[in-house]
Amino acid sequence: MTGVGLIGTGFMGKCHALAWNSVRTVFGDVEKVRLVHLGEANAGLAAIRATELGFEKSSGDWRAVVADPEVEIVSLTTPNQFHPEMAIAILEAGKHLWCEKPMAPTLAEAEAMAAAARKSGKTAVLGYNYIQSPAIRHIRQLLGEKVIGEVNHLRVEMDEDFMADPDAPFFWKHEATSGYGALDDFAVHPLSLISALFGRVERVMCDMAKPYPDRQVTGGGRRAVETYDIASSLIHLDNGVSGTLLVNRSAWGRKGRIQVQIFGSRGSIVFDQERFNEIQLYVTSDRATEQGYRTILAAPVHEPYGKFIPAPGHGLGFNDLKTIECRELLARIAGQPARVIDFDEGLEIERTVHAMAQSFAEQKWVKVR
Amino acid sequence: MTGVGLIGTGFMGKCHALAWNSVRTVFGDVEKVRLVHLGEANAGLAAIRATELGFEKSSGDWRAVVADPEVEIVSLTTPNQFHPEMAIAILEAGKHLWCEKPMAPTLAEAEAMAAAARKSGKTAVLGYNYIQSPAIRHIRQLLGEKVIGEVNHLRVEMDEDFMADPDAPFFWKHEATSGYGALDDFAVHPLSLISALFGRVERVMCDMAKPYPDRQVTGGGRRAVETYDIASSLIHLDNGVSGTLLVNRSAWGRKGRIQVQIFGSRGSIVFDQERFNEIQLYVTSDRATEQGYRTILAAPVHEPYGKFIPAPGHGLGFNDLKTIECRELLARIAGQPARVIDFDEGLEIERTVHAMAQSFAEQKWVKVR
Amino acid sequence: MTGVGLIGTGFMGKCHALAWNSVRTVFGDVEKVRLVHLGEANAGLAAIRATELGFEKSSGDWRAVVADPEVEIVSLTTPNQFHPEMAIAILEAGKHLWCEKPMAPTLAEAEAMAAAARKSGKTAVLGYNYIQSPAIRHIRQLLGEKVIGEVNHLRVEMDEDFMADPDAPFFWKHEATSGYGALDDFAVHPLSLISALFGRVERVMCDMAKPYPDRQVTGGGRRAVETYDIASSLIHLDNGVSGTLLVNRSAWGRKGRIQVQIFGSRGSIVFDQERFNEIQLYVTSDRATEQGYRTILAAPVHEPYGKFIPAPGHGLGFNDLKTIECRELLARIAGQPARVIDFDEGLEIERTVHAMAQSFAEQKWVKVR
Amino acid sequence: MTGVGLIGTGFMGKCHALAWNSVRTVFGDVEKVRLVHLGEANAGLAAIRATELGFEKSSGDWRAVVADPEVEIVSLTTPNQFHPEMAIAILEAGKHLWCEKPMAPTLAEAEAMAAAARKSGKTAVLGYNYIQSPAIRHIRQLLGEKVIGEVNHLRVEMDEDFMADPDAPFFWKHEATSGYGALDDFAVHPLSLISALFGRVERVMCDMAKPYPDRQVTGGGRRAVETYDIASSLIHLDNGVSGTLLVNRSAWGRKGRIQVQIFGSRGSIVFDQERFNEIQLYVTSDRATEQGYRTILAAPVHEPYGKFIPAPGHGLGFNDLKTIECRELLARIAGQPARVIDFDEGLEIERTVHAMAQSFAEQKWVKVR
Repeated sequence: MTGVGLIGTGFMGKCHALAWNSVRTVFGDVEKVRLVHLGEANAGLAAIRATELGFEKSSGDWRAVVADPEVEIVSLTTPNQFHPEMAIAILEAGKHLWCEKPMAPTLAEAEAMAAAARKSGKTAVLGYNYIQSPAIRHIRQLLGEKVIGEVNHLRVEMDEDFMADPDAPFFWKHEATSGYGALDDFAVHPLSLISALFGRVERVMCDMAKPYPDRQVTGGGRRAVETYDIASSLIHLDNGVSGTLLVNRSAWGRKGRIQVQIFGSRGSIVFDQERFNEIQLYVTSDRATEQGYRTILAAPVHEPYGKFIPAPGHGLGFNDLKTIECRELLARIAGQPARVIDFDEGLEIERTVHAMAQSFAEQKWVKVR
Repeated sequence: MTGVGLIGTGFMGKCHALAWNSVRTVFGDVEKVRLVHLGEANAGLAAIRATELGFEKSSGDWRAVVADPEVEIVSLTTPNQFHPEMAIAILEAGKHLWCEKPMAPTLAEAEAMAAAARKSGKTAVLGYNYIQSPAIRHIRQLLGEKVIGEVNHLRVEMDEDFMADPDAPFFWKHEATSGYGALDDFAVHPLSLISALFGRVERVMCDMAKPYPDRQVTGGGRRAVETYDIASSLIHLDNGVSGTLLVNRSAWGRKGRIQVQIFGSRGSIVFDQERFNEIQLYVTSDRATEQGYRTILAAPVHEPYGKFIPAPGHGLGFNDLKTIECRELLARIAGQPARVIDFDEGLEIERTVHAMAQSFAEQKWVKVR
Repeated sequence: MTGVGLIGTGFMGKCHALAWNSVRTVFGDVEKVRLVHLGEANAGLAAIRATELGFEKSSGDWRAVVADPEVEIVSLTTPNQFHPEMAIAILEAGKHLWCEKPMAPTLAEAEAMAAAARKSGKTAVLGYNYIQSPAIRHIRQLLGEKVIGEVNHLRVEMDEDFMADPDAPFFWKHEATSGYGALDDFAVHPLSLISALFGRVERVMCDMAKPYPDRQVTGGGRRAVETYDIASSLIHLDNGVSGTLLVNRSAWGRKGRIQVQIFGSRGSIVFDQERFNEIQLYVTSDRATEQGYRTILAAPVHEPYGKFIPAPGHGLGFNDLKTIECRELLARIAGQPARVIDFDEGLEIERTVHAMAQSFAEQKWVKVR
Repeated sequence: MTGVGLIGTGFMGKCHALAWNSVRTVFGDVEKVRLVHLGEANAGLAAIRATELGFEKSSGDWRAVVADPEVEIVSLTTPNQFHPEMAIAILEAGKHLWCEKPMAPTLAEAEAMAAAARKSGKTAVLGYNYIQSPAIRHIRQLLGEKVIGEVNHLRVEMDEDFMADPDAPFFWKHEATSGYGALDDFAVHPLSLISALFGRVERVMCDMAKPYPDRQVTGGGRRAVETYDIASSLIHLDNGVSGTLLVNRSAWGRKGRIQVQIFGSRGSIVFDQERFNEIQLYVTSDRATEQGYRTILAAPVHEPYGKFIPAPGHGLGFNDLKTIECRELLARIAGQPARVIDFDEGLEIERTVHAMAQSFAEQKWVKVR
């Protein structure tokens, strides 16, 4: 049995643990794994989490996990800024890596991570789970079959409201050291969908905005906000398709919205992550009097929904996407075809985000490469 | 660690296994369990399933699971007609029981099961998982707080289309020995919601219909269908609320629809299981110019959503409902407050279904008790 | 130019006047009419309304309108209880009649009206405008073409909330003399749709409820409510289709909801009057992986939408339905094919409502004829 | 009675005629008008249309309408390129003008029209009817009341599919002489909403695209398309709000979509013209557990819905918007407060569109003024 290590046990750490727990039972076609070693910030917390999440060993030093000969795959779910050092160490230790997104604060670090992955010969995969839903996979198939003809335009939006409260105090996500703002928090997700469905972005023209230019500091006074909660970008893809990518982490009312509108010469597709068990499809092959968007509910005919539930329309959940991702990771490690975003593909996403930031800084179109 | 047995490994068997796998990691506040012993129709299949689902032992005879002293709780997910014998044996063996619904083909058998449960002193719970969603739990809370005032009317519909194809051949669900049809396949689910939200049904007036009176027999010829795919019932609850309960397992286009409409003196609530991460709420306390149904997305503020995902609007899946049910079962066994439908409450549901069938047979209103 | 009279100028009176104003411009294929004579409760009000609505003459006595030789068609929009006397007088005077629904408080009166219409040889049409929408017409066409195969089940609901406030005082609609309640206020509308789409109702089993058994009297005290705001009926149609018809005029949140669910052997159709420019259609002829309800927006391909607007998806309004009805009335008068509910068809609707009331009184199934 | 002239009888000409027919009956508070004189391309067509639309006189020369002393207000609904000459002649003849949008092909012509309007002292109003819906008016009120706090971001999309068929032959809208494409066909509508709700646009950064670079010519061969069906613009308003304005007239599946998303510090508003009787409102003043978008149905509490229909949720139609616009025009003429887009405000919209085109040509941000 393959041994698994986990470093970091926040939101995504628990998701990884649940995925490791379920993947074999859900899919049947992957080997059983052992949850071997968990690393956290200190030994006490690590021990508690190991008990909760079902790991055999625990350490207060992440290096112990990396050094553990029983660990063959490491789930890395620590904050962004720790990724470069940890990821490179894991890969250099000859272990496969399942790393949460985005890769790293700077492009140089992301490049170093991708280089380490290539050098290691190991599988290094990023946690872009939104590409894993049966709906997005089916959209990919529909596009491949030209069900909506040739795609000519694209709009993607990602919005949530966790930064929307103007009275919430200044915290680390308002500091420039945390990144650009919505660009790295959010834009990477729509970019992962674009990558999975269409390929690379060629050039970008980006605008950014701060809904609240300053915020109260806990303890007194106000401080200027250094990051941008809103980013809006005109984009051109390598394949000639034009579009827009709009993100807003201060969008009151939106909770997990990723709306995708794809326009083709014979139809269109609309998808929203807030209802990710549904696809909206319009095709001109329907009779004129009956043309309209169909609401297609995810079902066993849409892989891999049926591995979870044999009945249509019952609905997968967010955590199930992580289980699918885990299965794809194992397939990739086993040398089978797999739908993942590896470090090279992830590096392209990072490049696009940095190009957007540069475009805003220079107020002009910027080529990604 | 408590030892768990599983008898039956179909749709619901896999659900139970997934729930047992995840419950500790998700909730943290329940003890870890051991997956001890799995029973299937023959030893070979049992061994395969035990490997897939992660059970230590397997047997081709369910009695071996019941007799296993290491097994303290049994998940029973075999077809309906096997429930009485197995459930009673499990309870008589002094084990806790998590039994899939409905209880049994006949009311007498269900009564015997409930009697066995009472006599055993063990926890015996039915798999009515739709009551477990954060949305339904929150609706229960809204009703308790009188957010929509005093409820005066109720409509519930449950529809799927797995029996809708007129060209599908005759099979066992078309035989009278399988039960009444939609009444026991479907009506029990809305009744579980009514039981969880309002209490008991007092009287019923039911109509039933066969959309396809006969079907082709595999091998040649046609045979009269003996069960009713559609049942429509006028109902009165013990609390004086009137309503309707409509079910249809030949409803093309519906995949997992359970629509609930609750009308009160100060507002109304609408819910649909096909979008079970959403609640529609209308309240008259909003300003007149802004009154309208709100679409509330399930979020950490709606228990126990936050145990799965710390971010709102990301969505639970169908299998997560079973994990919640599993946690409630463990809470009940531990003597803590728990939201479950036990055998006594389940017996009321069965009584209501049989009253509906009697009402149709006699073409008149029938009291449930 | 045909001369038109109008008796009654409330909600529906204004609708009729707007329809008479617009019908020629919208359709082009009907002759121009003259708005000749308006009757109201007194001469002063009549004069004001005639000026507002554009009628040449006015009278405080409705008999003057009936007696006017220049009037060839009369719009009758007075309250229900005045219909029998006025309608019969209009028909006996040899004029065509456009009468608002329902026909009359009692079945005997409705029968007398229908008899008078037959005897007169004139056109007598009821204002069931919901059957006139392009969507409902298109649904009729879809059913005729068997796009959803053979229909086997039907559910219709009509709900509004204008009686939902428990603090609103007792008024005439709470008195038994006003009729049964939701049955005659609402049930007639779904029945008009059933009549237009399927034909006659064969038998009914009805339950009724009072959400608020008594209400405050303006001036002091409380008084028992004598009418039923809620009615729920099991129904069987002449063509063998079973279904339910549910109405509620105390349904908080519902404003003009008439939901129709039609289930067939090859698909299903869902319609809601609150979004009456849309049809939901599910057909099994779509590929399995793309089956889903299509939202079809009313468009010029759906007659007679294009007479109003040459662009699809722009939306007709409620008043436009009355203009269509007016055009159908004129077509019927001109001896052309027309989609109207005449007094004979309207009488069937009344019979069904009275059968529902009888069913509730006797607590058993009642045949309509 | 004020005399009305009409020049042009296509889509919008009929809309104007219907509005003139209905405005007095609907509103009651405006004076009755006489439909005096209709002008069309030739005398024969003019005569036919005058009969259909109810005008007293007709002419094959539009100048006859302008010269008619009985005409005090002229509806001008001819194609765009005829507007400048005709509009200026009408205003110079001392008549009020109701002119369809957009103003003119070139900015210079639009400026000349606005100058003529100012010089004339007459009312000159543009047909931007989407600002007239009760929903948009109510959104304006909500913004004024700060119900969603301070607005910080805005997204507007307008999409239809009338140019989406790649097999449709080349026609005049593909020629550069017809304008830029979606920019003048569509962008002006969202800009009218922005103007009505927020004020002026300060600067724009626009991208444009041709989904089909060439099209078949009727008779043989293919020809390069010179106009852009798609335009996507980053925008900044004078009030500091940033946003995006995206239009696409080749968007399969969209029929009359104008989606508006308004984000504020205390909530958000979403509106879609395809369901223009509905407003989506999210406010943070709702209790945390019940926050969600409300679907508010247009009702008599939303002016001027009640002038059309006294019952909520029954729905206005597209043509009703033109009747409201007509009433506002008459109010403006009468010197009363009125919600219209006059030639000066319209000129700002034109300026913005031309700035967008310039921005695309120069690939940089362009200030509108």
